[in-house]
Amino acid sequence: MDQLSQIKIVLVEPTHPGNIGSVARAMKTMGLSRLVLVNPKKFPHYEASKLAAGAESVLEQAEVMQTLSDAIDECTLVVGTSVRDREVTWPTRDPRAAAQAIIQHTAVPTQQAAILFGRESSGLTNAELDQCQFQIRIPANPEYSSLNLASAVQLINYELRMQAIAQTDGLEPLSEQPVTNVAARQRPATKAEREGHLEHLQNTLVALDFVKVNPPTVLMRKLTRLYNKADLTVEEIQILRGILASVDQHLTRS
Amino acid sequence: MDQLSQIKIVLVEPTHPGNIGSVARAMKTMGLSRLVLVNPKKFPHYEASKLAAGAESVLEQAEVMQTLSDAIDECTLVVGTSVRDREVTWPTRDPRAAAQAIIQHTAVPTQQAAILFGRESSGLTNAELDQCQFQIRIPANPEYSSLNLASAVQLINYELRMQAIAQTDGLEPLSEQPVTNVAARQRPATKAEREGHLEHLQNTLVALDFVKVNPPTVLMRKLTRLYNKADLTVEEIQILRGILASVDQHLTRS
Repeated sequence: MDQLSQIKIVLVEPTHPGNIGSVARAMKTMGLSRLVLVNPKKFPHYEASKLAAGAESVLEQAEVMQTLSDAIDECTLVVGTSVRDREVTWPTRDPRAAAQAIIQHTAVPTQQAAILFGRESSGLTNAELDQCQFQIRIPANPEYSSLNLASAVQLINYELRMQAIAQTDGLEPLSEQPVTNVAARQRPATKAEREGHLEHLQNTLVALDFVKVNPPTVLMRKLTRLYNKADLTVEEIQILRGILASVDQHLTRS
Repeated sequence: MDQLSQIKIVLVEPTHPGNIGSVARAMKTMGLSRLVLVNPKKFPHYEASKLAAGAESVLEQAEVMQTLSDAIDECTLVVGTSVRDREVTWPTRDPRAAAQAIIQHTAVPTQQAAILFGRESSGLTNAELDQCQFQIRIPANPEYSSLNLASAVQLINYELRMQAIAQTDGLEPLSEQPVTNVAARQRPATKAEREGHLEHLQNTLVALDFVKVNPPTVLMRKLTRLYNKADLTVEEIQILRGILASVDQHLTRS
C-alpha cells in the first residue's frame, strides 16, 4: 500500500474551494495523501477545510504550483482524466486498466505517477492531455456524464486502492512483473526528458523544411501522442536524439 | 444495460436533503434511475434539487416510503452497505464481487434487487442488516473510512455499470479498449506496414552514417521494440515515413 504515496493527484485550476476539500476527503478514504493544486482560484479557503471533514492533513500537505509543468516534471508516468469524447483520440483506458498500469509502474519505488483532473467547467485542455501517456476515461452514462470532481477522484482512487490491495494480497498477480532492479538507462523517462526530445524533434523538422507552418502544432500533437504511447526509456530517448543530432549535422554541413 | 433499471438504491432515513440530490446525480452518471427514500427527514427540498444538477428526473421518480419493508418487499435480492466493522458479522463482499452477484441476479428480468444505504451518522442498524442477504463493504482506509453517502453510492453504482458493460460486451472490463471512432488512417498498422517503416528507417540511418555496423542489428532491435510499444496507426507510420523521406531528400541533394 506504500505505493499509493508515489501517486500525486493533480487538480488543474480548480475553481471551487469546496471541491478541493471534497477531493481531499475522497483521497484520504482510499489512502492517498499527495495532493497538488495547479493555480487554484481560492486556496487555502475555509470551504475547502470544511468539506475536507477530517482530511485536513491532506490539505495541509498539499503543494500549490503555478504551472502544470512544475507539478509533473519529476513524474515518470502522467495520465489525464476525461469523461468526454474528443476529436483527437488519445490512448484511453478505463479506471480499472489504468489503476493496474499505475500500480505496476509505481512498484519501482523511485517512480512517481501523476493523475491530472481538469477544471470543473471544461476539464483538461488538449495541450494538457498532450502531456499524458494515456487518458483515463470513466465509462459514464453517455446521456449524463456529469460526475463532479470529487466523485471522479473517488472512483479512480478506489480502483488504485483495490489494485494495491490485490497486489499486497497476491490475489491477482499482475500480468507483467515489474522489474525492480532497473538499470538507469532502462528507467522510464521523466516528463522533462520526454519534452526535451520533442523540442529537439520539432527543431530538426523545422530545419528540414518538413513543416509548412511553424510551430507545427497539429503535427507535434500527433508526434507527442505517438511517443507518449511508447513509454520511452532514458536509453530510447538517447537513441532518438542521437539520430536527430546526426540529421542536424548533415543539415549544417550542407 | 437494461438490468440497471431492476436495481433500487434505497436511502434509509437520510438527514440532509443535499445528500439526496448528490446521490441522484451519482446514480444518473452511472445509468441508474430508481431511487427509494425511506422516511427522509426533508424531501422534497430545494437543496436536493440544487445538488441533483441535471439529475432531477431521478428525484421526480423517487419513491418515498414510510418503512424499509415497504421499500424492499418486492425485491428478490437485498443487500446492505457498510464501511465499518461490526461485531456481528454478516456475509460480506467487496463492491466488485457484490456488483457481480447483483448483475447476475438481475439477469432474470422479473427479479429486482435493492441496495440499502444507511443514515449519514450511524449507517444501518443491525435489524436492518438482518434483512440483507449480504453486506457490501467498501475497502476504505481503516484510519479514515468516512466516505460520504453520495461517494459510497457512486462507487457501488460504478461497479454495477462496469459489470453491466462487461456482460453486454461479453468482455472483461479490464480490457484496454481504446475508445475511438476509427477512421481508416487511425486503424492499427499491420505487421507489414510496421516492417516497411523499420526498413525505411534502417536505410536512412545507414545513409546518414549513423550506424557503425551494417546491418545495425542491436540498434534496430531497440528501435523495433520502441515503435512496437507505440502501437502505431497507419497515419503515424505515414508521418514517420514522411520525415524519413524528407531526410533522404536532403541527403541526396547534398
